[in-house]
Amino acid sequence: MYLGIDIGGTNLKAGLVDESGTLLRTRKEPLGRVSDPEELAARLAGMARAAAAEDLAQVQSVGMGVPGAVEGGTIVYTCNIPMKNIPMERMFRSHLDLPVHLGNDADCAALGEYHCGAGKGCRSLVAITLGTGIGGGMVFDGKIYEGLGMAGEVGHMVVEPGGVPCPCGRRGCWEQYASASGLRRMTWEAMEAHPESLLWTITGGKWERLNGGTAFKAARRGDEAARAVCGTYIRYLAQGITNLVNLLHPEVLAIGGGISNEREESLLRPVREIVDRECYASHGGRKTRVVKALLGNDAGVIGAAFLGRSR
Amino acid sequence: MYLGIDIGGTNLKAGLVDESGTLLRTRKEPLGRVSDPEELAARLAGMARAAAAEDLAQVQSVGMGVPGAVEGGTIVYTCNIPMKNIPMERMFRSHLDLPVHLGNDADCAALGEYHCGAGKGCRSLVAITLGTGIGGGMVFDGKIYEGLGMAGEVGHMVVEPGGVPCPCGRRGCWEQYASASGLRRMTWEAMEAHPESLLWTITGGKWERLNGGTAFKAARRGDEAARAVCGTYIRYLAQGITNLVNLLHPEVLAIGGGISNEREESLLRPVREIVDRECYASHGGRKTRVVKALLGNDAGVIGAAFLGRSR
Repeated sequence: MYLGIDIGGTNLKAGLVDESGTLLRTRKEPLGRVSDPEELAARLAGMARAAAAEDLAQVQSVGMGVPGAVEGGTIVYTCNIPMKNIPMERMFRSHLDLPVHLGNDADCAALGEYHCGAGKGCRSLVAITLGTGIGGGMVFDGKIYEGLGMAGEVGHMVVEPGGVPCPCGRRGCWEQYASASGLRRMTWEAMEAHPESLLWTITGGKWERLNGGTAFKAARRGDEAARAVCGTYIRYLAQGITNLVNLLHPEVLAIGGGISNEREESLLRPVREIVDRECYASHGGRKTRVVKALLGNDAGVIGAAFLGRSR
Repeated sequence: MYLGIDIGGTNLKAGLVDESGTLLRTRKEPLGRVSDPEELAARLAGMARAAAAEDLAQVQSVGMGVPGAVEGGTIVYTCNIPMKNIPMERMFRSHLDLPVHLGNDADCAALGEYHCGAGKGCRSLVAITLGTGIGGGMVFDGKIYEGLGMAGEVGHMVVEPGGVPCPCGRRGCWEQYASASGLRRMTWEAMEAHPESLLWTITGGKWERLNGGTAFKAARRGDEAARAVCGTYIRYLAQGITNLVNLLHPEVLAIGGGISNEREESLLRPVREIVDRECYASHGGRKTRVVKALLGNDAGVIGAAFLGRSR
C-alpha cells in the first residue's frame, strides 16, 4: 500500500491507496495560512498517519504532489504557498519515517490518470487540467517525463502572438484563452459588448457569479453572444491540444478540471472534431484519443501515491 | 560496429559507424527516381555492403532513417518517395541478412546528436531541423520518443492563428514562418514591398537565387528591409523554441539545417536571448541549453546506425 499527499492551493489531502489504485481512506483539511514549513510537515505526517490508520505497517512509501517545482527531496518553490528550498523529505521523515517521493502536482495527476484513470493500459499519456491556468503532465512508459524538472508547462505555449499578457512574462499564452479563467474573462468581455445577452440575467451582472460554466449554460439557452464565446473557447482549446498531439502524439490526451464536466456535445465532441481534422496523424497513422480525465480531484492523491511505484 | 542508412529526399547515404559514433566509411548516391521498392532495397543493401567492406562480419545491425512514418520493419509511408506499407526489413534482409531497425529521419538525426553531437552526455534532447519544413526529434534517457509513431511534428504547431495556410491543413504552422522556406517567402515579400532594398541587388530579383541566407547577408550590409525580415524570423523561431522549452524542458535543444550555420551573433544569440527571457524556467530552475546541432548532414546516418543500440 502507498500513501499519497496532495498539497493543493486550497486543501491538503492524504490518502491510502492500494496496488490497484483504489483510494481506501482519505483525510482532508483546509490549507489555511502556512507560515512554517516544519509545522506543515508535521500536519502532513499527522494526516498521512490518520489515513493509513491500522494499515500503517503495510505502507511502502509516501508520495507528495506539490504545486510547484521539486528536486529530489526538496521543494524548490511553490506558486501559492511561500516555500523555497524546503527539505520536505527530511522534515516529513522526522515525523513519519517512510520513503518519501516528491512530485509536481500536475505530474501526479497525470500519473494517477495513467495508472487507473483515463489512460489505464496506455503507453503514453498527456493530461491537461483546465483551471486557473492550464496544468500539464506527461507519462511515457509508466514514467513521469519532467525534463530538467519543469516540463509540462503547456499553459505557457503562445497561441496568439502579441495577445493577452501572461504573468509568466509572455503574451498570448494558451492559458490566457483556454483555462477556466480565460473563459471567464472572454465571457465578461462578451457581456460588456452585448448588454442584451442572457449572460447578464444568469450572473446578475456580477463577476463573482461568473464561472467556466456560465457561457455554456447561456449558449444552451440560445444566447448568441454566449455561443460565440463558446465557439472561440473551443477553437483555442482545440488549437493547443492539436499542437500537443502533433508534438507528442500520445496514445491518450486527458482533459481535467471543472470545465471538462461540461456536456460531451458542448465541449469534448467539437474539440475532438477539430483535433481529428487538424492533427498531423489525420493524414495516416494512429490517432490520439482525446478524452475526459476520470479521477477528478482524486487524481492528485492517487498519482502521488504511485510516485513510489514508478521510480 | 553498426551500419546506418539515410534515405533523404535527394540522396541515399550509407555509413559504417563504430561504438563511439565515428563515421568510418560512407557511400552516397543520388536518390533518382524510385519506382520499385524492391530495387531500392537492393540498392541500399549494396551501398551498406560497400560501406561495411571488409568489416562486414563485425556489423551488429543496420539502422535506416526514413523521411516518413515507420512501424516495426515496415515503411508506412514517405513524404517525397511514393512508398506505402513497404516491408523494407524483409526486402533488405533478402539481400543482406542483418538485424534491421527502421526509424524516422528526424528521430535518427536527434539520436545522432544525442549520442555524439550537441547532446553528448545529456539526458534529454530535442533536435529541430530548419529546412523546407521544420523536422523534430526527441530523445529522452537514450530512447527516441515517438508516441504513437508520429511525435515530433514540431513544424505543425500553430504559432499564428489564421495565418499562412500549410499543406498539413492547418493555418499559421510554425514551419510556415521559421523554416528556411518560410524565411525565403518572407524575404520575397519584403522585396516586393521595398523596391529600394539591397535584396534586389543580391538576388538579381530572381526567386531561384533567394535562399535562407539572403536576408542575413543583406542585413549585415545594413539593409533595413532585410533587417526587419531577420527580426521577424528570429521572433518566430524563438516563439516556437520557447514553446518547446516550456513543454519539454529538455537539457539540450539543438538547431540544425542550413540556417543554423548563420553567424552566432546574427541568429543563435538573439534567439537565445528571447528564449532565456521568455521561458518558464527563467523564473527559477535549470535552463535548457539552446545550441547548434553539430553533426550536420551526418546526423541522420550516425543516428540511424545507433537505432540498433538504443532499442
